[in-house]
Order: sequence, then structure tokens, then C-alpha cells
Amino acid sequence: MAELHPVCAPLAFLLGSWRGTGTGVYPTIEDFSYAEEVSFTHVGKPFVAYAQKTKDADTGLPLHAEAGYLRPQGDGRVELVLVQPSGIVELLEGTVEGSDVQLASTEVLGTGSAKPVTATERRLWVEGEVLHSSVAMAAMGLELQHHVVSEMYRLS
Amino acid sequence: MAELHPVCAPLAFLLGSWRGTGTGVYPTIEDFSYAEEVSFTHVGKPFVAYAQKTKDADTGLPLHAEAGYLRPQGDGRVELVLVQPSGIVELLEGTVEGSDVQLASTEVLGTGSAKPVTATERRLWVEGEVLHSSVAMAAMGLELQHHVVSEMYRLS
Repeated sequence: MAELHPVCAPLAFLLGSWRGTGTGVYPTIEDFSYAEEVSFTHVGKPFVAYAQKTKDADTGLPLHAEAGYLRPQGDGRVELVLVQPSGIVELLEGTVEGSDVQLASTEVLGTGSAKPVTATERRLWVEGEVLHSSVAMAAMGLELQHHVVSEMYRLS
Repeated sequence: MAELHPVCAPLAFLLGSWRGTGTGVYPTIEDFSYAEEVSFTHVGKPFVAYAQKTKDADTGLPLHAEAGYLRPQGDGRVELVLVQPSGIVELLEGTVEGSDVQLASTEVLGTGSAKPVTATERRLWVEGEVLHSSVAMAAMGLELQHHVVSEMYRLS
């Protein structure tokens, strides 16, 4: 195991794997609930790798996935670069304060076949034993609004 | 194991894990060699997840990593969305013909702290038992030019 890069220390509270459940809403789709698993790992370099998968809470079939890297800047600022199988990439910037990471997109881009997403806000925060994750999204021509929120417990 | 989505059939030759070695060059850095491992996986949906890691061939220390999703379009066209811990995201479009995927970036974006990369071309092709991977890159104000090439053998 590599030693954690000092610049990643403010994100150490995220490291490991977490599993839980969440709910999603958006005006263009039906409400849904899901099982979620995320991991935050490091290799001793100044970033934290993030991977996420969700499954339908009823059928167990895969729903969403995403992968990316958190890049702490050493002054409380954090960047997140993110990719999604829906053909979307995101660049986000924000802050880490205590056990709370808040990020807003500076760029969201999609391939020719991707649905139009124009902005996101993301928050990851730990209270007690619980990792909370939420995403607000501007998509399909609509304004930025709440999309998903989940609660997860540490696996490792 | 989910059944492969029909649209992914042209990419079935990539599925699994591969390991090998490569070499890198660029005018702004010293030549380097590396050990590489990649995986291509699917969950029954119309995309193939891609993950890659490289290590220094001498020291074993981690060098590069990237993650993304290949999105075959059903007509020989393929999209690739990609994220790198260096703070860069890429959207690429191209084709799959036989065992040869050739892609060129339509967008390359970086966070505020990322090095300036403006374009890439990527190729993945299998000849016999060998997966070849190459990347050309326009970065640091230079024109698109060869950057890395590797040869890998199937692990699974």
C-alpha cells in the first residue's frame, strides 16, 4: 500500500468502499430507487480515484455507473473529472470542508448520441457512519434541480 | 454474467483483461517505458467499460491511469468518453473495423490545474494474440504526434 499523498489528506475520510441505497427524481422520468456502491482509492499520487455503480433496487439490474478522479488542490479547493457511460464527461470545481465535499460543474459535454446535460452540482458528505451523496442536474433543457440522493455505509 | 448487448458485438474481441509493456515519447519529456494493464468489461448494456493503469517498467511505481466507456453506435461508428487523473476528459469518435478501433478526439478539456492537451488520436487493434494500443497527442502547444504504443497479452 502506497502512503497517502499529503495533498489528499483532506479527502481521507472518503477512502474505501461504501454501499447503500438512494432515490432519484427528474421531471422527464419516473421516480426510481436504487442500490449504490462507490469506492475511493489512491496510489500515493495527488488524486483519489472514484468509481460508482448503481442497480435497480427491485430487479438488481445495472442502472448507472460513473468513474473519475478527485484532485485536491492543497488549499481546500477540489477538482473532480468524471466520465459516464451515457456519453457524458464533466469537469467540476469546489471545496472540501471537514467531511463535506461540494462541487459544481464548470463544463459538461456529451458525445453526439448523449442526452443533453448542461450542468451538475454534486455533494459528498459524511455524518456519523453515513456517506451521503447527492447530485443536482440541468438536463433535457430544464434548470438545475435535485436529481438523486443516497446514503451509504462503509464496506472497507 | 449478463448477455452481451448486440450493439457491443463488434467490440467483443476486446473484452477481458490484458497485460503488457509499452514505450512513450514526447518532445517535452524524456522517453519512458512502462508496464500496462487494461480491462474491457460489460454489464449487458450498450457500452463497454474501459480501465487502464500503467507502472514504471523499472520501479513499479504507478504512472498513468484512465477510465472510460466505449459506445458502439451499431453502424461501425464508435464513441469513447474518457477521464484521466491528470484532470483531463476526452470525447472521441471513430470506427471499429474487424479487430481495429480507431478514434480521434472531438473535444479535450482540462481542469484549471491540468496540462494543456488539445487533441488525441487513439487506436486499439488485435493481431494474432496481441492487443496493440497507441495514442497520438497534441499537448503543451505542440502538434498532434505519436506519444505511446504498447503490446499486451490476454489475462482473462
